[in-house]
Amino acid sequence: MVVKSELKLIKSLQQKKCRNEQGLFVVEGQKALKEVLNSNFKRYKMYSSISENIGVEGVKAIKVSTNELKQMSSLKNPNGYLGVFYIPQPMVITDKDWVLALDSIQDPGNLGTIIRLCDWFGIKHIVCSNDTVDCYNPKVLQATMGSITRVYINYTNMVSFLKKTDLPVYGTFIDGKNVIKCQLPKKGVLVMGNEGKGISKAISKLCEERLTILQFGKKTTESLNVATATAILLQEIRR
Amino acid sequence: MVVKSELKLIKSLQQKKCRNEQGLFVVEGQKALKEVLNSNFKRYKMYSSISENIGVEGVKAIKVSTNELKQMSSLKNPNGYLGVFYIPQPMVITDKDWVLALDSIQDPGNLGTIIRLCDWFGIKHIVCSNDTVDCYNPKVLQATMGSITRVYINYTNMVSFLKKTDLPVYGTFIDGKNVIKCQLPKKGVLVMGNEGKGISKAISKLCEERLTILQFGKKTTESLNVATATAILLQEIRR
Repeated sequence: MVVKSELKLIKSLQQKKCRNEQGLFVVEGQKALKEVLNSNFKRYKMYSSISENIGVEGVKAIKVSTNELKQMSSLKNPNGYLGVFYIPQPMVITDKDWVLALDSIQDPGNLGTIIRLCDWFGIKHIVCSNDTVDCYNPKVLQATMGSITRVYINYTNMVSFLKKTDLPVYGTFIDGKNVIKCQLPKKGVLVMGNEGKGISKAISKLCEERLTILQFGKKTTESLNVATATAILLQEIRR
Repeated sequence: MVVKSELKLIKSLQQKKCRNEQGLFVVEGQKALKEVLNSNFKRYKMYSSISENIGVEGVKAIKVSTNELKQMSSLKNPNGYLGVFYIPQPMVITDKDWVLALDSIQDPGNLGTIIRLCDWFGIKHIVCSNDTVDCYNPKVLQATMGSITRVYINYTNMVSFLKKTDLPVYGTFIDGKNVIKCQLPKKGVLVMGNEGKGISKAISKLCEERLTILQFGKKTTESLNVATATAILLQEIRR
């Protein structure tokens, strides 16, 4: 049994504004929850309509009814477990490796896929412009498949960040240099732009190098999806 | 004004079985429709709740009410234009270039993204196992962004196809050889496996070479998404 105000609080965490006000976010599904529970993220509360036992030692869920879980969940069909965690403090961005910078990525699925890619390629830091979709959005979290626990994400003013960094700044553009022909350094900032508009003017001025993924098909082809383009560039960086 | 049986027919094309029986499929949205109308695909009928004129010379849409369009559409909010086209005859697969082979891809978004990638990298032929999601599924079509008109797709028995082909067969596995260290030939078949299970046993036996995308993050990381893995491998093929 959960009091009404608590159900309301958790439901409200589907909105970015409320997440930021409360400093909390929601994770759903047993598999994703196990990953988060075994990470450095701090737990606020756990709920389950199935069992108190979620399969992680020392963690007990509050038993709730299917109906109560439905009231908290962002899913049409909640899958039995829901956990609330504290949003971690942003980590200081080191300049020892490549950093991925995202300029106004809007699609939650794309951001989730990109976080998962960074985890795969061992990229520790992602810097997001303030207008990039929130990484604690339920749809983003679902697409990251637990990778969110292994990648540090900062939201910041991108122009200020790029002006301050000592790392060389590489941007991805339609008319850049074929990335295959570029000697990429051991570290740097890689900027990926918005799904429709690419990298904004103010930020493109701060890119010292302009990279492109060469196109082989007809020129009528739409640009590559930003997540698939990121996949290709991270592989080039790690070459 | 459209008769009831016609509304019913078009609605039914959301199901694979009906598409195959009728040899027809549906495309929605003005931008995607323009691409298909300007391709080799044969038009059956065009409908619009906005205007007879869709912006392509010689093409007139049948004017319908918003309600009629809603009855035909697979979208919650239909966007004004809907076209029905004939499913093209499968093209003979040539062995002059790389061919992408998909073993039981299930997610429509993944297949759509992969088709778009093939278009970008100039891969003309995709061979799909018979249990791969149908490429004329509305969600696949939406994700291809018109690329479906520039890539030939065959559904077939994958084992038979791989046994018959003269091309060298490369598969993507968790435990293969780092693709960066491989000298890839000018042509071949690249096999990508199912989202959860990877390449099936019967097909993996037919792969002469086993490729891997090297992982840099912690080993707990989930495997790469199949569409992002395809992006990386197509870039390697075109290197």
